[in-house]
Amino acid sequence: MPRRVLAVDLGGTKTATALVDESGQATSERRAPATRSVEETAGHIAAAAEGACGVGVIVPGVYTPATGRAWCPNLWGRDEVPLRDALTARLTVPVAIDSDRAGYVLGEAWLGAARGCRDALFVAIGTGIGVGILSDGRVLRGAHGVAGAAGWFALTPEWRDAYATTGCWEAESAGPALASAAGAADAETVVRAAREGAPDAVAVLQRAARFTAMGIANLVSAFDPVVVVLGGGLGAGAADLLLPIVENEARRWAQPLAMARCRLVGSALGDRAGLLGAARLAWSLLEAEPGHDRDQVSPRTR
Amino acid sequence: MPRRVLAVDLGGTKTATALVDESGQATSERRAPATRSVEETAGHIAAAAEGACGVGVIVPGVYTPATGRAWCPNLWGRDEVPLRDALTARLTVPVAIDSDRAGYVLGEAWLGAARGCRDALFVAIGTGIGVGILSDGRVLRGAHGVAGAAGWFALTPEWRDAYATTGCWEAESAGPALASAAGAADAETVVRAAREGAPDAVAVLQRAARFTAMGIANLVSAFDPVVVVLGGGLGAGAADLLLPIVENEARRWAQPLAMARCRLVGSALGDRAGLLGAARLAWSLLEAEPGHDRDQVSPRTR
Repeated sequence: MPRRVLAVDLGGTKTATALVDESGQATSERRAPATRSVEETAGHIAAAAEGACGVGVIVPGVYTPATGRAWCPNLWGRDEVPLRDALTARLTVPVAIDSDRAGYVLGEAWLGAARGCRDALFVAIGTGIGVGILSDGRVLRGAHGVAGAAGWFALTPEWRDAYATTGCWEAESAGPALASAAGAADAETVVRAAREGAPDAVAVLQRAARFTAMGIANLVSAFDPVVVVLGGGLGAGAADLLLPIVENEARRWAQPLAMARCRLVGSALGDRAGLLGAARLAWSLLEAEPGHDRDQVSPRTR
Repeated sequence: MPRRVLAVDLGGTKTATALVDESGQATSERRAPATRSVEETAGHIAAAAEGACGVGVIVPGVYTPATGRAWCPNLWGRDEVPLRDALTARLTVPVAIDSDRAGYVLGEAWLGAARGCRDALFVAIGTGIGVGILSDGRVLRGAHGVAGAAGWFALTPEWRDAYATTGCWEAESAGPALASAAGAADAETVVRAAREGAPDAVAVLQRAARFTAMGIANLVSAFDPVVVVLGGGLGAGAADLLLPIVENEARRWAQPLAMARCRLVGSALGDRAGLLGAARLAWSLLEAEPGHDRDQVSPRTR
């Protein structure tokens, strides 16, 4: 039987888990409602890790490797929680933890649309906008784990109050913005109407796409990646509608040498990007020489 | 006598050189007009390197470590030049090469306003706008050496033709933009008039500063640094006028957790940031274990 790691994608509303072997083959893939206490979450993960040789966990928020604490307001409230301690107290195998954005880009770089790329971005557009960054083969986290918070990109000098809570790009282009601008129940409804050619829905989608083009152009000028993967619920679901507009407009704005050598593509893994990225985190930890990756912690010697 | 490296800051119009010891003490500091052929430049550098134990060179453009070639249109025309080969053919000591933006941030992180910081940005505002990036202690270059080309940031949906050649932020906030908007000979004249309270000059500077605030806010959201150093001819020269506006406006736009923990400061090294950064490049190369930094090349064994 091949060795397997337990991959855990902790979402705001549901938790996805799977056992994943070294080639990326997943078995026992499950989705369950999210649990609201970090202790309960850690207990479920420990139970599911039975037989696994390592665990990879991604969280919907900010993870700080120096402290092992996670800040995930949609999951565990406004305070940081001691996620690493809660997990290592219950696990007998090594555990790697990172943000969901890191997981997405790692998953796509391992098995998806950015396969084998050392400089890649994953732009997740759903209820929010966030970016996973791979630079020279390493996940870029910033000083406080906040790097890639591109939903806060300022893309117009015309201030609107909505920008204060989510950032400008997110307020213009994420799912709730589309629904609100079109007076629809949700972004999926707007996308469906746009596909059917409804002029209002098309206009709303185009406006959002133009801001997304500016945001992606800025990411290309800033990070000079070889590929930008568009994902997230809205980004992946409407990639066929968004990409032609984004491609066309982003070329106008971005640094030309960087843009000319950068592919814009839809996610190949869809909502499994995070789960496979979590698996990749665990495998990287297991493959690493002792002390090689100081951002991860092995509880093997506890 | 202490060991010294030769530091070389190749600018578009002048070349600065100095011998720099391991503590950052510089001697024999010189400025000379730039030479227009890479062969001639390499010859001058080799002559000046007499007695040095290593050489660090920064270039005003894009340097590609994989090929050793530099693209510096203001210095050597539109074609890439084989800079590393030209240098190693004439030098008997190791040479490290990087972009000027990398040099600026390394200099400030070594001896200046970002001393000791592992996550720092140097925003150079002069005739152009470019950003040097230090992330987790490493210079971030991107896949093609273009990372940090933030002068191309899209900051307004209202397209202007001027954006096509320099990018939006640069067209709104760099020196030539100020001079042109104020109908002045150069940006220094505008800054001087603004200091004296001339309303038109103040308005021009404030408009440029508001775009700069948006650009810096976007950099903070993207990279999550602990410090942003404002430098370059205009950035350092008018830091006292620009920083209060930038500070105030950037806080409105940027990801709040990242912004709250990030300092915005003027350059401490002024136009010596690059020279000291070039020295730091050389010292890092000399200190590195063999094979430790695969981006640099030692010709010691030639």
